[in-house]
Amino acid sequence: MKTRIYGGKLLTRPGVSQAAEGEVWIEDSRILMAGPADRKAAELAGPWDVEINASRCLVLPGFKNAHTHSAMTFLRSYADDLPLQEWLTRAVFPLEAKLTPENIYDCSRLAVMEYLSSGITANFDMYYEMPAAAKASEDCGFRTVFCGGVNDPYGSAEEITALLKDWYERLNGNHPLISFRLGFHAEYTTCAENLKAIAELAQELKAPVYTHNSETRREVKECVGRYGMTPTAYLDSLGMFDFGGGGFHCNYLSEEDIEIFRERKLYIVTNPASNCKLASGIAPLVEYDRAGIGLALGTDGPASNNCLDMFREMFLATALQKLSRHDASAMDAGRVLRMATEGGAMAMGLTDCLELAPGQQADLILIDLDQPNMQPEYHLDKNLVYSGSKSNVKLTMVAGKVLYENGEYHIGADPEEIYARAGRVLS
Amino acid sequence: MKTRIYGGKLLTRPGVSQAAEGEVWIEDSRILMAGPADRKAAELAGPWDVEINASRCLVLPGFKNAHTHSAMTFLRSYADDLPLQEWLTRAVFPLEAKLTPENIYDCSRLAVMEYLSSGITANFDMYYEMPAAAKASEDCGFRTVFCGGVNDPYGSAEEITALLKDWYERLNGNHPLISFRLGFHAEYTTCAENLKAIAELAQELKAPVYTHNSETRREVKECVGRYGMTPTAYLDSLGMFDFGGGGFHCNYLSEEDIEIFRERKLYIVTNPASNCKLASGIAPLVEYDRAGIGLALGTDGPASNNCLDMFREMFLATALQKLSRHDASAMDAGRVLRMATEGGAMAMGLTDCLELAPGQQADLILIDLDQPNMQPEYHLDKNLVYSGSKSNVKLTMVAGKVLYENGEYHIGADPEEIYARAGRVLS
Repeated sequence: MKTRIYGGKLLTRPGVSQAAEGEVWIEDSRILMAGPADRKAAELAGPWDVEINASRCLVLPGFKNAHTHSAMTFLRSYADDLPLQEWLTRAVFPLEAKLTPENIYDCSRLAVMEYLSSGITANFDMYYEMPAAAKASEDCGFRTVFCGGVNDPYGSAEEITALLKDWYERLNGNHPLISFRLGFHAEYTTCAENLKAIAELAQELKAPVYTHNSETRREVKECVGRYGMTPTAYLDSLGMFDFGGGGFHCNYLSEEDIEIFRERKLYIVTNPASNCKLASGIAPLVEYDRAGIGLALGTDGPASNNCLDMFREMFLATALQKLSRHDASAMDAGRVLRMATEGGAMAMGLTDCLELAPGQQADLILIDLDQPNMQPEYHLDKNLVYSGSKSNVKLTMVAGKVLYENGEYHIGADPEEIYARAGRVLS
Repeated sequence: MKTRIYGGKLLTRPGVSQAAEGEVWIEDSRILMAGPADRKAAELAGPWDVEINASRCLVLPGFKNAHTHSAMTFLRSYADDLPLQEWLTRAVFPLEAKLTPENIYDCSRLAVMEYLSSGITANFDMYYEMPAAAKASEDCGFRTVFCGGVNDPYGSAEEITALLKDWYERLNGNHPLISFRLGFHAEYTTCAENLKAIAELAQELKAPVYTHNSETRREVKECVGRYGMTPTAYLDSLGMFDFGGGGFHCNYLSEEDIEIFRERKLYIVTNPASNCKLASGIAPLVEYDRAGIGLALGTDGPASNNCLDMFREMFLATALQKLSRHDASAMDAGRVLRMATEGGAMAMGLTDCLELAPGQQADLILIDLDQPNMQPEYHLDKNLVYSGSKSNVKLTMVAGKVLYENGEYHIGADPEEIYARAGRVLS
């Protein structure tokens, strides 16, 4: 199938390139050409099965939501405004324990809908029952990189590594939209024996490892109490990051931790809305950026955020740096836009979803400039980051297929049914 | 003209009442009834000129954007990521000096469009050329309370008070959608003689006075240096607040300032997105609330924010309190929702725009619950504050007239023309 997107402005590498008129030509899931094209060339390159008029739109790679717990949509607005520990122990943990694979399938589809409405074309998901969540993405046509979320309740070191290996084999290479990275929930929920076994598996598979890291001061302090080292230093001492990986949150990295991230080429995925709402802190992104660490952006789960909206995250990623550093020039819009697109793709290992270029996956969005919050059009990248909204997302395409357009979802299921099923999980 | 809104859920007093099924009946600009109604009663109360089906929608009073500089849309994304002083002196001030009344008319209309798309039904606007801005609101059918923005460049004490008095007379009582409150730009831009004259005018008119107050540490420090008092204490010592009023921003009020605000029944209008983006600070809203001070919420101008979106402000109003107090339970969603509606109306003196109740103005919005970010529906107030988005705004009504519905504007002008005119201001 051949698709042509014409009449719009392209932002082929957000935060790096400038917007310019052009077309995107797509064959099946991949981009054939992205750039200036005259009518004659387009005719010669055709015939086209689908032609999309992008007039008055900005076309750019979709946002990569680099840290999520999709199925937690079932808990949205169920238990907010509670202290963190009470929220976890009284609301989250007991309710999660009741979830069935079917619940996880339903609630993951609800999250996918929300991703699409916010221009997100891929997510990096950590949750239980990954095969059920993978089926949700496959059925919707959405791209998901899964990340192991094991911790002590999953069993012994043998059981945990067997499970990770099983996921690694089942979720890699079997479906073009699904992949899997090694990972575990966090140092503070996983004992030394289990962590050592995961590190050994990483060595065996020569694979990168991802985990929640240094989200709160307490987490870092307790790890130092246990091992005499920060979470980053301790995990690295086990050989956990010999083949790369990354950390989610990373609000409290030490100088030594930053050096480990830099040396091991680990990615940092920041989650500013969640870190505000749960009162965890502000990640010093300017320092991380200065150290040359790869940065990505994520919403975290809908129970802690509560929305899955990359526009809110982009604004917060820069606004909180400005606020905490007392410097209105900190972390400019272009840098944030790059985090939300190319940065996320790099962190997730999606090296064919980096930009609008030949050979890359056709994971892209159309932003409607004909709305008051996008006017005037002096700096489209600043408009996106400082005043953009999901209401500007006109179309979201994953792997060459239009999954969302003008408020309508094309995901092979009825939205009403998905809402009803997600709403019944706790009843 | 009689309008009936049926089939939806009503949030008659956001943050106070719970959502319940009901209808809203409107005659011309006012609400006749808001509450439960059966089909028969609705038939008897008719015939209806307009019937609006609010099925799967939440109906609530519109948001009151209680601090704006509407016409600054012309500067959106023109000069971001600059240090505050450089931004003001190199970008804002020289460009503002070139604005014509016609520019202000055009750019104010662009802001009104954005307000409508975010469910805002009234704004509290401070800018130059108020009659031109008032014409923009009148022509669009939008409600605006203006606030004097005079400072030293406006001239002598006589000139300034004559201007304020002129606005006070021209903009009060002559159009149902327009009113005016006394005000000045800030203590730091207005000399003692001029401030004293404004205070005398407030005494003469027995009128409340509004101003930017304690936005930055530097502003407070410099005022203490000049007068040995904080801005609040100094202005109060002049009799400025004997008839009430309020302050915009108020990030750095002292204990004594808080006591003055409490005693004089002054309102605080907080502007969290602007305060982040310009690195000004976080207003301690929890303390202000505890002291019993009336709180309202505003976007500030589009050059400092950059969007005019009350959903972003609502999230930040609670998220920054949680973050700065290290307490995820601080400033709950209901409190924020009340700030954004009734709190704003009180601060602006719009006592007939407080709630959905008989006799009140029909300034209301319909929120589409049939979108993924509003599901599940456990707590609609939390959904609004923590995951709501302007994409959920289905309809915005001001004074009984539908000005925005399903992305279309009914403001007596072509959006494209407004965009084009606003985009030409700096060319």
